[in-house]
Amino acid sequence: MTVDPDRLAAAMRLAIDESAGALGLSRPNPSVGAVILADDGTVIARGHTQAAGGPHAEVMALRAAGPAARGATAVVTLEPCNHTGRTGPCAQALIDAGVARVVYAVGDPNPTASGGADRLRDAGIEVIAGLGERDAMSGPLRGWLFRQRHGRPLVTAKLAATLDGRIAAPDGTSQWITGPEARARVHRQRARLDAIIVGTGTVVRDDPALTARLPDGSLAERQPIRVAMGHRDIHSDARIASSAAGEFRQVRSHDPADVLAALSDTTWVLVEGGPRIIGAFLDAGLVDEIEAYVAPTVLGAGRSAIERPAVTTLSEGSRLRLVSVETIGDDALLISRSDRLPDRG
Amino acid sequence: MTVDPDRLAAAMRLAIDESAGALGLSRPNPSVGAVILADDGTVIARGHTQAAGGPHAEVMALRAAGPAARGATAVVTLEPCNHTGRTGPCAQALIDAGVARVVYAVGDPNPTASGGADRLRDAGIEVIAGLGERDAMSGPLRGWLFRQRHGRPLVTAKLAATLDGRIAAPDGTSQWITGPEARARVHRQRARLDAIIVGTGTVVRDDPALTARLPDGSLAERQPIRVAMGHRDIHSDARIASSAAGEFRQVRSHDPADVLAALSDTTWVLVEGGPRIIGAFLDAGLVDEIEAYVAPTVLGAGRSAIERPAVTTLSEGSRLRLVSVETIGDDALLISRSDRLPDRG
Repeated sequence: MTVDPDRLAAAMRLAIDESAGALGLSRPNPSVGAVILADDGTVIARGHTQAAGGPHAEVMALRAAGPAARGATAVVTLEPCNHTGRTGPCAQALIDAGVARVVYAVGDPNPTASGGADRLRDAGIEVIAGLGERDAMSGPLRGWLFRQRHGRPLVTAKLAATLDGRIAAPDGTSQWITGPEARARVHRQRARLDAIIVGTGTVVRDDPALTARLPDGSLAERQPIRVAMGHRDIHSDARIASSAAGEFRQVRSHDPADVLAALSDTTWVLVEGGPRIIGAFLDAGLVDEIEAYVAPTVLGAGRSAIERPAVTTLSEGSRLRLVSVETIGDDALLISRSDRLPDRG
Repeated sequence: MTVDPDRLAAAMRLAIDESAGALGLSRPNPSVGAVILADDGTVIARGHTQAAGGPHAEVMALRAAGPAARGATAVVTLEPCNHTGRTGPCAQALIDAGVARVVYAVGDPNPTASGGADRLRDAGIEVIAGLGERDAMSGPLRGWLFRQRHGRPLVTAKLAATLDGRIAAPDGTSQWITGPEARARVHRQRARLDAIIVGTGTVVRDDPALTARLPDGSLAERQPIRVAMGHRDIHSDARIASSAAGEFRQVRSHDPADVLAALSDTTWVLVEGGPRIIGAFLDAGLVDEIEAYVAPTVLGAGRSAIERPAVTTLSEGSRLRLVSVETIGDDALLISRSDRLPDRG
């Protein structure tokens, strides 16, 4: 028996959606999703990778399927691993469960974990590779794939500025330039990524909590690592250092490379500021994506969103590629990417 | 006989499209479009207002229709005028042509020209008012309607900046921050509006031509009045003062109200800069719309797009309403409006 190709493609889209549940949870492991499909195309079960040391997506889905997995098709966003770490290899779990077929989107580029497809084939399981690969690569897997390729986490920089690029008035007032919808999106994003980076100057001046909060003000279930970079001492009362939400790390360096090296357990990080910190990441060529929230407000004075004192001429600017523009509440969101990232996703 | 309402609505959309041909041409008169429709809904003729002193839209369309206008329906974006200025009243021209019915979108708010509808009705012509009024008000008529209501031209400010709001690097380099598609749109817009305003500082520093050019570099058929505001002397060799394209005016004042008073023959003007000139218009509450082209480039140093030295705190910022975001080539275009303008158009 074979499953209809349209149903397989739909199941892969479902697996990608499911994998989003692993964002902000599975670090440093990839955010993978898996779907167990009956021959008639019915979805038997689904699952996503849990926190490090916990079950991977395939195991979660197999557990949910129980005996119904026997003879079924497993649809997974990433090649099942062949690696015994804190958990056993997923390829073996699929063999043990008796699935007849494994469909995956993206081959595992990690030499210590790859070989899963071969192991499955050796066990007599039909393997289909590459279905929905492009969508999967630009989906929740992208931070982990980026790390496999570039040896560091994917870096998104966030701005929230006026039409004239200001983030605060001369007297320091800045709340709120963007509206509640834009701020809510930032909080949802914080819960999906691994770390937020700010400068110690921002911490001392603004005392931001940098937590992911729900619209009612309560803490989201998942919280990013909060990172302060720089030499200024962070007071133990600082909100960023509060143990109530997420881990806090200080990296006593102004070099973005040092900061990323101290985040080897992350795959996707957000640089939130201040202007010189974002500037330092740009100077170092370490910004892969910029998410700029632009409010339809003009200040005409005050702090600019990004400061790069070493830039003197236009050709020294950082040129990215605009990949999307949209309206978020009363504001615009412009997403731009470097050549290291694909347009989509 | 009556014309099908859907055909009337389509004819009004056509009349609005036709009226765009009067932009940059008809000042200080409204940019009106007219369509002559047969009873079966066939378009017999169309026309738009010509340069001041020339025929209005109705007369252009009636001339094109010839004897076929008798018994037909005239569809016009603005109530036909009842005013004998340099041309005779359009209401009388429609009566003389023997049209059976006149449909118009927007009533004439100008007391010296209104009364056209009454004159038509008195002549036994069926008059339908208000069809497509909202579309017409936000279309090519909007500058003229704005002047009727506010006693000054509609003011659009244009920015072309980096993601961090810069318009030039510290060494003054600024060509090109935005791409060719965005620049081409600016040139198309210049040909459709009545005047461009810049500061004398910009003229002295950059020597801009401020002409409307076609993609091949040649001059567009229509050119805006080019206005320099400020006290610095403009050299007779300055490109803005060249008589080859459009009229040049200098207004020796830093007060935007003085500049607009010197442009009583205009209905829509564009403030192109520099940063302090746009800031002065904002300070005076005289910016109705901002068109911000944003390039996916970060400078991190250099001149900001708007400078308002008097602003000290966030609440002094100018808050507009974002009405559209779109991609123009490699750049984003964000259009924001004040409460004086509707969302659409």
